[in-house]
Amino acid sequence: MARVVLGMLGLGTVGSGVVKLLAQHKHLQLKKIAVRDLAKERTTTTTCPITTDVNEIIDDPEIEVLVEVMGGEEPALTYIKRALEKRKHVVTANKEVLAKHGPSLFALAREKGVTIFFEASVAGGIPLISTIQRGLGANQFKAVTGILNGTTNFILSNMEERGLSYETALAEAQALGFAEADPSADVDGHDVAYKLSILAALSFQRFVKPTDIYRQGIREITPEDLALAKEFGYRIKLVGTARSTTNGKETSTEEKSLAVRVHPTLVPLSHPLAAVSGSNNCILVTGDAVGEIIMVGPGAGSLPTASAVVGDIINLESALKLPDFASYFQPSITSQWSNTASSDDWVSPYFLRLSVADTPGVIGTIGTIFGNHKISIQSIIQRGVKDGRATIVILTHDVREGDMNAALTNLKECPFLDSVASAIRIYKAG
Amino acid sequence: MARVVLGMLGLGTVGSGVVKLLAQHKHLQLKKIAVRDLAKERTTTTTCPITTDVNEIIDDPEIEVLVEVMGGEEPALTYIKRALEKRKHVVTANKEVLAKHGPSLFALAREKGVTIFFEASVAGGIPLISTIQRGLGANQFKAVTGILNGTTNFILSNMEERGLSYETALAEAQALGFAEADPSADVDGHDVAYKLSILAALSFQRFVKPTDIYRQGIREITPEDLALAKEFGYRIKLVGTARSTTNGKETSTEEKSLAVRVHPTLVPLSHPLAAVSGSNNCILVTGDAVGEIIMVGPGAGSLPTASAVVGDIINLESALKLPDFASYFQPSITSQWSNTASSDDWVSPYFLRLSVADTPGVIGTIGTIFGNHKISIQSIIQRGVKDGRATIVILTHDVREGDMNAALTNLKECPFLDSVASAIRIYKAG
Repeated sequence: MARVVLGMLGLGTVGSGVVKLLAQHKHLQLKKIAVRDLAKERTTTTTCPITTDVNEIIDDPEIEVLVEVMGGEEPALTYIKRALEKRKHVVTANKEVLAKHGPSLFALAREKGVTIFFEASVAGGIPLISTIQRGLGANQFKAVTGILNGTTNFILSNMEERGLSYETALAEAQALGFAEADPSADVDGHDVAYKLSILAALSFQRFVKPTDIYRQGIREITPEDLALAKEFGYRIKLVGTARSTTNGKETSTEEKSLAVRVHPTLVPLSHPLAAVSGSNNCILVTGDAVGEIIMVGPGAGSLPTASAVVGDIINLESALKLPDFASYFQPSITSQWSNTASSDDWVSPYFLRLSVADTPGVIGTIGTIFGNHKISIQSIIQRGVKDGRATIVILTHDVREGDMNAALTNLKECPFLDSVASAIRIYKAG
Repeated sequence: MARVVLGMLGLGTVGSGVVKLLAQHKHLQLKKIAVRDLAKERTTTTTCPITTDVNEIIDDPEIEVLVEVMGGEEPALTYIKRALEKRKHVVTANKEVLAKHGPSLFALAREKGVTIFFEASVAGGIPLISTIQRGLGANQFKAVTGILNGTTNFILSNMEERGLSYETALAEAQALGFAEADPSADVDGHDVAYKLSILAALSFQRFVKPTDIYRQGIREITPEDLALAKEFGYRIKLVGTARSTTNGKETSTEEKSLAVRVHPTLVPLSHPLAAVSGSNNCILVTGDAVGEIIMVGPGAGSLPTASAVVGDIINLESALKLPDFASYFQPSITSQWSNTASSDDWVSPYFLRLSVADTPGVIGTIGTIFGNHKISIQSIIQRGVKDGRATIVILTHDVREGDMNAALTNLKECPFLDSVASAIRIYKAG
């Protein structure tokens, strides 16, 4: 007694989990699965017919819901559009497609009176989308911040705990299947940027172009940075944030300016973000009424992500019989892209590691340059003198990013400076 | 341009927050507020008419939604029933009414084609209800566990950090307004039991009578227990849990047996529950697909709780125009009460503090008695000998609670035993 008929694109990690989980939900009938390559070896056993012809799903009028778990921009985008055109609802885990094409896809869904469900596109099994969209609906959001990529978190945890280099930790993660052969999507922060674009859309009603998101990955992080950070009471995490930079209440969404960023960040060891180990995700949502809500859970994995996909299908299915229900589920997102605040205006404390000549007057000169740029130093410590070179570690108070960049430019002109080995922002709640 | 007209019962802490938050949501029109005592001094300013006659709200056909934030069993129960009879939707923060009368209230709502929304009844501002009901809907739940009472958490934090006695910490909490003059609802665990009853209904589709919930409060906890626990790597928290005790998949809800309990619990210092300080709440939800999801946030307070109430109103309002939408929101809860598992069958490690005569053979006798009851000891340490009396601290491995009770009965017959000063369960994930 099927109440809803589904077609699915993709049978990889997530798709296999969906097949497994759907077996427990007999009223959800998976009619057909389309894959790229029938010959590929699969561990999933399913009685559901498998095809390489996507049209058998998209053109089948009996299929009401397209489940898209193939990932990647194309051809997924084309298939999703065609399904929406045919008035099929879409349940997708595809962060890249939503981040790059969200405004036009949601506009198309609205036009056709269907919905796009996308709980699995951010934070895997953590029901973050429904929490922002439903549970916290009474709030004006101030910020959504978190660890949104399990691969980089796994690599950083291993570097810190075992003193591994980035390269070694990455190779281990690749060998274990936690990182791709081409790791760029994870380690350069693209994956987090896509997720932030979606979270900005939900929290602030406007998508942000992934290319407008300030993005810095973890390739430059060294075991020395991690060890020094720990000494000062911090842990380095890849933290993404989407924050309203408007003070007070907005009169219209047009006026909102958003700071949307992903970069390595020193978080205090006592902070919940510091406690997130391995491939877990952790998200802090700050609303004007509720204050801060923290969610922690599996950010990836076959069954956790399938939990989000099948949860969407169940919510969709139980509403399908309501006439005109699509408007209830459709998030109110404008079809325009949002402006982002200049990254120069971001304010946070900084952790710096400099390699300098071990000569008198160095600290005085650094202090003067920083003073000229309105940068207040919290602590400055000389470490590890060797062969006439010394390491200087500086922790600052709040600095405008533009001022820090100007100060570093000045500093690089000093003859005593070998290099700014690291300049990493310190977490600032907000 | 009001889209929904509301009447509210109660204008205390939560009600004041609702008034404040509704001012930001102009399409939600609060038409009238009923209070017990007009003369009571209130800091809230509102242009909304205030009455002492509840009938002006319940009998007003224009009012579509009753917002009940007065608390307590009666007369709230009567008012909610009358509103449902009149086919008004109900948004309530009332855990006591739902826990004691949930089955009949949900049956009445179903009969009348209206809904009861209750996000604020558990965990204050944390959107736990929508997470279980919507976000994690694809899961079979194994357990919901957490710190669900901020008052007792505040008292225990203060006792631990400052070495205060229970009485002193309670008096301070009362002076600060964090505890009631009659603290029983909080410190004896009634409040948590009500919340567990609601969480069991959502997670396992059956309410549990609050009187069927094993309940032990924090009155007996001493600073010695807290200090000793810390020495062994634990913190003592009042932890509530609702757990399915059926192994594997259930074939019908009738067969489910639930272990539902609240009592002081030693949690490892590295566990997220140990990090919850002050009046925050923390909940761990374990589902078969997703694994473990953790949520942390304000468990009480005027605006956080109002965030949950107004969130419910917004979700209700945006669906009100859909015909027959009530069935979508109505959780599928049977109108029968659930059985609970015998507390004797609960299994966990134990922390024991015994006061004994400092004579030879004591540890041998204790070991023998425990062995006779199949209790395996992890560590046993003698502490603080004074005036011929000694303190013995024991940590056990997993013990069936019935076996521990039998062992303690035997132990109490030993002439060397002054008292079992403490017997506190240790947290066991599940």
